[in-house]
Amino acid sequence: MKNRPTASNIRRAVLADKAWVTELFDELRAGSLDATGPGVTRDTFGAGEQFGYRVIEARARDMGLAIRSDHAANMLMTLPGRDRAAPSVMMGSHIDSVANGGNFDGAAGVVAGLVAIRALQALGLTPACDVTTMAVRAEESVWFEVSYIGSRAAFGVLPDGALEARRVDTGRPLGEHMAECGADIEAVRRGDASLKREDIRAWVEVHIEQAPQLIEAGLPVAIGTGVPGNFRYPNIRILGEWAHVGLPRRFRHDAVLAASDFALGLDEIWKAMDAAGRPMAFTIGRFATDAREHALTKVAGEMALSLDVRAYRAADIAELEAKVLALVKAIETRRGVRFDLGKRTAADAAPSHPALMAKLTDAAKAVGVPTMPLASPASHDTATFTVAGVPSCMLFVRNANGSHNPHEAMEIDDFLDAAAVLAAWLAGEVAG
Amino acid sequence: MKNRPTASNIRRAVLADKAWVTELFDELRAGSLDATGPGVTRDTFGAGEQFGYRVIEARARDMGLAIRSDHAANMLMTLPGRDRAAPSVMMGSHIDSVANGGNFDGAAGVVAGLVAIRALQALGLTPACDVTTMAVRAEESVWFEVSYIGSRAAFGVLPDGALEARRVDTGRPLGEHMAECGADIEAVRRGDASLKREDIRAWVEVHIEQAPQLIEAGLPVAIGTGVPGNFRYPNIRILGEWAHVGLPRRFRHDAVLAASDFALGLDEIWKAMDAAGRPMAFTIGRFATDAREHALTKVAGEMALSLDVRAYRAADIAELEAKVLALVKAIETRRGVRFDLGKRTAADAAPSHPALMAKLTDAAKAVGVPTMPLASPASHDTATFTVAGVPSCMLFVRNANGSHNPHEAMEIDDFLDAAAVLAAWLAGEVAG
Repeated sequence: MKNRPTASNIRRAVLADKAWVTELFDELRAGSLDATGPGVTRDTFGAGEQFGYRVIEARARDMGLAIRSDHAANMLMTLPGRDRAAPSVMMGSHIDSVANGGNFDGAAGVVAGLVAIRALQALGLTPACDVTTMAVRAEESVWFEVSYIGSRAAFGVLPDGALEARRVDTGRPLGEHMAECGADIEAVRRGDASLKREDIRAWVEVHIEQAPQLIEAGLPVAIGTGVPGNFRYPNIRILGEWAHVGLPRRFRHDAVLAASDFALGLDEIWKAMDAAGRPMAFTIGRFATDAREHALTKVAGEMALSLDVRAYRAADIAELEAKVLALVKAIETRRGVRFDLGKRTAADAAPSHPALMAKLTDAAKAVGVPTMPLASPASHDTATFTVAGVPSCMLFVRNANGSHNPHEAMEIDDFLDAAAVLAAWLAGEVAG
Repeated sequence: MKNRPTASNIRRAVLADKAWVTELFDELRAGSLDATGPGVTRDTFGAGEQFGYRVIEARARDMGLAIRSDHAANMLMTLPGRDRAAPSVMMGSHIDSVANGGNFDGAAGVVAGLVAIRALQALGLTPACDVTTMAVRAEESVWFEVSYIGSRAAFGVLPDGALEARRVDTGRPLGEHMAECGADIEAVRRGDASLKREDIRAWVEVHIEQAPQLIEAGLPVAIGTGVPGNFRYPNIRILGEWAHVGLPRRFRHDAVLAASDFALGLDEIWKAMDAAGRPMAFTIGRFATDAREHALTKVAGEMALSLDVRAYRAADIAELEAKVLALVKAIETRRGVRFDLGKRTAADAAPSHPALMAKLTDAAKAVGVPTMPLASPASHDTATFTVAGVPSCMLFVRNANGSHNPHEAMEIDDFLDAAAVLAAWLAGEVAG
């Protein structure tokens, strides 16, 4: 006997999955603990990610979903709709993690997609169109230093040369790693597409928040306002002059001081943008003198650093890049050093779809989950869907201690609140 | 038949050694080229330094000097005087180099000491007292991160724990390396002294200049005004919080920015001291995020850095250390990070002996070599002699491209000018 898909029935169905969800997260964690350090490591197109796929696939099979892998080894788990030809509703996120990261960053969005489908199943609702949860490959760009590998390959827009990018730990190219995980490299190289915008009605990604803004606000869930675009220089070198500790100040071309000028110059830019209410973020994740050459009594002649700059509006991104390049010129002149910026990558800003944001906000109200709009400066595959023209949005789940570290701490009750919002929205989309 | 030790005869004797000097430097260079990189590597208490000692010893033997090694494996090469019990005149410098360094930093001072003795021999002058050229061990503190190992061991003032310091490349303790080179470790540990202030009439060290101040001034030789004292923190750690690139500015505790604050704060202090005519130098030689943890999309939770601060007056050194500690506190508060300063080492400032400076200046005038007084901010073994109470001074030789790198470029003619000044002063000291 069917229950009507009312908000309260949907919420009840999701809450009933608490044990299923907890067990699934525990199974994922237990199998991807890092033997060499803290936390979990589900390495991109490696053993860790593969393990995660096997666990998720087994659950989808139990649920009776139609499962297929595309040419980039992304996995699509579908509850067939009454009209198989109608554009589908999609949900999901990624399975991989950074090294020594947390269990929820990525996986939570895939699990939420499955829970939302389980709610439809529990209520005996056959959707009007296909409903698909996608486990996206290779979101964590620390491994290959290429953004959105899985989702961009799905849409056929992976940039030239990406397959030759080498994984930072193994030194082996992406193409080799992908092939080992079952991808069809020639199809990826040709730019084949497994996803097309006209076949997708909407995309929603649940993800833990990576900052403590929901904790600060005392709310469990946020409606994402957009994914920032970025420009990145992963391998900047600052070339000064190696010198003896005895060299007076006026003769020095100290790479350490030039790099410090750069970091603090960027920090000043961020401060001013914050004050002007124009959200952005910059991160210098790597910042190092050369361990083979540096010494206590040598003035450093070279620094290596990485730069990631992100913002939500194309105009802001362009203005920021101009400011970064002007800062570089100023430091080159002031310190008598040279910047070698190395390779550059970029991604467009991806604002959420306004009507979809409104629907998710309404769904949250219906199931009694308080929310707020939230700009999260992190990157997500949702950006690929948005840029492709798919109406897209994210739901963020309150989470302590950030992510990309072993201490991330999402409460399962907060996760179920987000899944209830997702399921209520989904039911509204496909009930017709 | 003897030539009178007039200034012009001394100068002629020194200039006659040009081929001997050139060959000796070439022999040193050829045998200590670094197989793995550019320049020469005469590693402290290792194969490179040992090679240098063998070459110098062979020359001293040819010259008929009395040769002995002390308990720290320093080598003393002596032309006996008429009164063997009278305080001796000493000259010299070190043999070791940094990795991928130059051929002259250190060795030039030992060669100059031999050339000065050869001038006495050429003029048939038997000195009133012993004249000794010392090849000092282990001056380059990059290897064990302990200053003045050879000279302080000679005076019996090597600090506690020094023998346990590990060489940065081999990881093995100083004591083990010293024993392999023939040192008597138990005597070193007891603090035995091979040099006593009352036995030494004066010490003069010739050294290449490590900055381009003589090039700027257009002069071949400078009379050193003193060796700076220093304080060092070789292993500072700045502990912030590792975080995701998505973390907004107000939540970050970014070790890269805190380290940049530290570097530029020190640079401001130096600028102000320069403007006030109070010479000093600071160097952050190592400055690095952890290669095992850092990544393009992680806010850095830790930076490791080294600090060397040096100045010429005890009061300046004390004031600088107070300023550094105040800067640390201010950054800890501003950035919400913690500094772990790690171990601290220090050395006293060592101003040159005024009467000896005057004598060297007079000797230079006599042999027609134009000089200037020069404060060099580098460390030298001369500091150990000064602190022990021996009247001490240095002569700097013009040199392009700094030192501690393969491009140092001292002209042999400038070297011979310095050697002529040294020989003229020496002849005056011991002619009596």
